[in-house]
Amino acid sequence: MWTIAGGVTTPLGFSAGGVASGVKRSGRPDLAVLLSDRPAAAAGVFTTNVVRAAPVLLGEEILRRAPEGVRGIVAVSGVANALTGPEGISDNRSLLASAESAFEVPAGSFLPACTGVIGPRLPLDRVVAALPALRGATGATREGAERAAHAILTTDTRSKEAAVRLRLTDGQVVRIGGMAKGSGMIAPRLAPPHATTLAFVATDARISPAALGRILAREADATFNMVSVDGDTSTNDTVYVLANGAAGPTPADDDPNFRAGLRAVLESLARQVARDGEGATKLLTVRVEGARSVADARAAARAVVGSTLVKAALFGADPNVGRIAAALGYSGARLTPDHLSVAITRPRGTVPLIVDGRPAPGLENGGGKRVRDLLRQLDEVPLEIRLNEGRAAAVAWGCDLSYAYVQINAAYRT
Amino acid sequence: MWTIAGGVTTPLGFSAGGVASGVKRSGRPDLAVLLSDRPAAAAGVFTTNVVRAAPVLLGEEILRRAPEGVRGIVAVSGVANALTGPEGISDNRSLLASAESAFEVPAGSFLPACTGVIGPRLPLDRVVAALPALRGATGATREGAERAAHAILTTDTRSKEAAVRLRLTDGQVVRIGGMAKGSGMIAPRLAPPHATTLAFVATDARISPAALGRILAREADATFNMVSVDGDTSTNDTVYVLANGAAGPTPADDDPNFRAGLRAVLESLARQVARDGEGATKLLTVRVEGARSVADARAAARAVVGSTLVKAALFGADPNVGRIAAALGYSGARLTPDHLSVAITRPRGTVPLIVDGRPAPGLENGGGKRVRDLLRQLDEVPLEIRLNEGRAAAVAWGCDLSYAYVQINAAYRT
Repeated sequence: MWTIAGGVTTPLGFSAGGVASGVKRSGRPDLAVLLSDRPAAAAGVFTTNVVRAAPVLLGEEILRRAPEGVRGIVAVSGVANALTGPEGISDNRSLLASAESAFEVPAGSFLPACTGVIGPRLPLDRVVAALPALRGATGATREGAERAAHAILTTDTRSKEAAVRLRLTDGQVVRIGGMAKGSGMIAPRLAPPHATTLAFVATDARISPAALGRILAREADATFNMVSVDGDTSTNDTVYVLANGAAGPTPADDDPNFRAGLRAVLESLARQVARDGEGATKLLTVRVEGARSVADARAAARAVVGSTLVKAALFGADPNVGRIAAALGYSGARLTPDHLSVAITRPRGTVPLIVDGRPAPGLENGGGKRVRDLLRQLDEVPLEIRLNEGRAAAVAWGCDLSYAYVQINAAYRT
Repeated sequence: MWTIAGGVTTPLGFSAGGVASGVKRSGRPDLAVLLSDRPAAAAGVFTTNVVRAAPVLLGEEILRRAPEGVRGIVAVSGVANALTGPEGISDNRSLLASAESAFEVPAGSFLPACTGVIGPRLPLDRVVAALPALRGATGATREGAERAAHAILTTDTRSKEAAVRLRLTDGQVVRIGGMAKGSGMIAPRLAPPHATTLAFVATDARISPAALGRILAREADATFNMVSVDGDTSTNDTVYVLANGAAGPTPADDDPNFRAGLRAVLESLARQVARDGEGATKLLTVRVEGARSVADARAAARAVVGSTLVKAALFGADPNVGRIAAALGYSGARLTPDHLSVAITRPRGTVPLIVDGRPAPGLENGGGKRVRDLLRQLDEVPLEIRLNEGRAAAVAWGCDLSYAYVQINAAYRT
């Protein structure tokens, strides 16, 4: 597998684009399309929130009905189309129908997604009026992928793309490329399958919708499910994967290389979402080892990246080991405090924070200047936690809690 | 029942005091005592965190062994005495033994509590050296209670006291008074019995330890369990109640008036803790009605006061109804989005925010200036949420998320 510069147009047969339709008052891009030149198998995972946006309800319905004939995704940023009742559903249906007509694809072959403020209805007239411009801005190029990746953002500070090229076990080369948005209202949920944030992945591999759905559920669980920015699970979270088979006839259904490739793309996007958490100045990567079960390892890793106090300490470059221990203690993971070890792991050497359940020497009273200076320098803080209870492991991604997070969310309107 | 100005010395037979022993580098008071002039029945509830501080382990042990002969509580603020291993336990035993000797009470009759930074050991020499001064500063007076209430604080901006006088059903008058600390690392936990923060309650009623334990578990669950400041559950949370029977012989074991009095004191202290949440500018009170079960009502109320995004919106006086709906949606409470109603309830009238699952008129796009101005003015924001699914109700208390919270926690060392 090769990691390559690219995005949703890296796989054969996909084009993408994005324009500003006027949904966002700022005039920034807010309407994106991902388009396959032939019918694609599709799978999706959605938020487990009981309050679900119209595009989530509609997307699930379309995938249930016709998961083999999908031609693309139409995404709007700026409004969530949530808390909008039956009108929200019919607004989104109208948008899809107009888009299908503008892009000359069969009715019922586009999937919907929205992200933004909860409450307002879709400004349908503006969005529909922008569809010809969107078609004009759509291409099977890097530029098209970048335009689409920008048009799905809300409070994000940068676009998020990832791509890999890999060989299936029989030798055939396939490509997987994706884009994501997500900065706030991002939190893991326990019940799989599910997802946080918006992420769209395209591949030119050939695969059945059922196999794609199984692989997506499993890999989203180990990637997007392990990201937390603020503990709030959105009404709109959606991950779609479209597989159009343009690379050739080899089926990827049970191919371990394909699964590894999909995971690499999802993991890269998930990390980018955590790194761009609202107001974030640092990425926090927590690897838990030695748990009694994967569920325990995940719960422990999630508790640490989700802890408000750990996040605030990280912002202050404060090696506050007590907060890490406290978060592990309430995580629900089975652990023995005296067996606990925590360290910052770097290529140039490991810096212990907790050893056998006690603060590492020198850290009892807030730590030496050395550890603080290290935390201040690191753009990514890699924590390794050993529970020493079993053999299961998991990784979670989060970010620090800054003044900017409060500022962004004390008055967020796109 | 009468609510009266007072604290832990309001009940007969109790004295209290506090001094600065030098645990806190700031020189602020950090050593407190609550003393009964006769043996008291005692009960306690403790954190459910698996990582438990030495005073929690020791306090549980003392209550198991001798819940009838308790003479008081010795509390240290500034260090948590957590992650301190077996030495932490023996340090705290030594402190209690020295204090029992200084106050001339039987060995094994004092309960311990600590709050502050996790990691450092108790500076035993300084604390023990301050015991004579503590005894000198202890009295059965308002002043004594106030000194004690100040000496248990950490990042709190004000002390927290409450007291009531009530008649048992047979007419005998008893008093209940309490004090609490708590500002950060405060969050409800699902498994009762448990507690958050430190709270010490004294009463001159006569009651068995078993009955006191049952009532405390139930009432702490409806009060301290429903407070959230930051979602982090501490290693040190402790609520103790001491009942010395000084008011007279009537047993309060099954007296509903006594239970109502204890609840009133705990509720007042819990509200004060939420109001003084680190960096808080507003108290948020969420009442959920019409849930299918009390567990559902509590889960829904807790999710809203615990939502980082709701808290940030509150700080910005932003009536962001979508975030409230999203929090209810991921709370785990059984609900139907279309049945949901949310309002700000005030004596001068109700301001609807969500009606039948839709934003109230005018709030779809962030609401009128009127609602924002109202939120800006309110020191306490009372939200009423109707699920319209059943008959159960619950109340939770929280606060907003401000720049000051981040500042306090990016570099907290007492």
